Amino acid sequence: MDRFAYTGIRVRDLDRSLRFYTRVMGMRELLRGTMDHGGVYVHLKAPGSTQRLELNWYPRSSPHYRPYRNGEELDHLAWWVRDVPATFRRLVRRGATPRIPPWREGRWELAFVSDPDGIWIELIGRALGLRRKASGR
Amino acid sequence: MDRFAYTGIRVRDLDRSLRFYTRVMGMRELLRGTMDHGGVYVHLKAPGSTQRLELNWYPRSSPHYRPYRNGEELDHLAWWVRDVPATFRRLVRRGATPRIPPWREGRWELAFVSDPDGIWIELIGRALGLRRKASGR
Repeated sequence: MDRFAYTGIRVRDLDRSLRFYTRVMGMRELLRGTMDHGGVYVHLKAPGSTQRLELNWYPRSSPHYRPYRNGEELDHLAWWVRDVPATFRRLVRRGATPRIPPWREGRWELAFVSDPDGIWIELIGRALGLRRKASGR
Repeated sequence: MDRFAYTGIRVRDLDRSLRFYTRVMGMRELLRGTMDHGGVYVHLKAPGSTQRLELNWYPRSSPHYRPYRNGEELDHLAWWVRDVPATFRRLVRRGATPRIPPWREGRWELAFVSDPDGIWIELIGRALGLRRKASGR
């Protein structure tokens, strides 16, 4: 197989999701286009990452349109962050939905927020206490 | 925000999904681990790509366990491929579920298959006819 290129998520309100992923999550729009059946796709990229996220929006007239319902296929989108607790607080202040506040698991700190459609976003990073200890501060 | 690192999908049968993503889709296992509540995660990478895919499996005892149901959050996982029709045929022969056979849209050729849990996988590449024309063959 050739190259796993990106993940596409379905969004119910394109403007709302674009605002969330650019203004709250800090991603940048790379390109957008319209499918033959009227659907719209937008490619986003986070700074310092080659991973792409595609937003897919379908009009009711599209053969791919389905009533939106939350399911279990997509577990989460994951972001590596330097400071999990500070990032969690900042994202929630900017409008992300808090899901699980920061907790520690071994060497890692984790937290979850969700996007406007209810998609879970994981924040994961090295536990700050450990990092300070390792660097001798 | 720091770095969009990977997409995690929930799988119902970890062995079945691992076989699919490694033997059919050609990905490679990078690491695996167990979460405190008993869930298992496996990171996969496709050759020639920095994108990662995480498989998440939860035992019934996990607080994150939910009855599996298909929903609309995850639109698809996308692979760039050199030869869309040939790749579509090969994947279906190896056990992927055919969803939409190859078709052309502008400069692109597209097709969809799905994984053992019903997750749609897009194959996208330049239309071969156009490529031959462009290179003068």
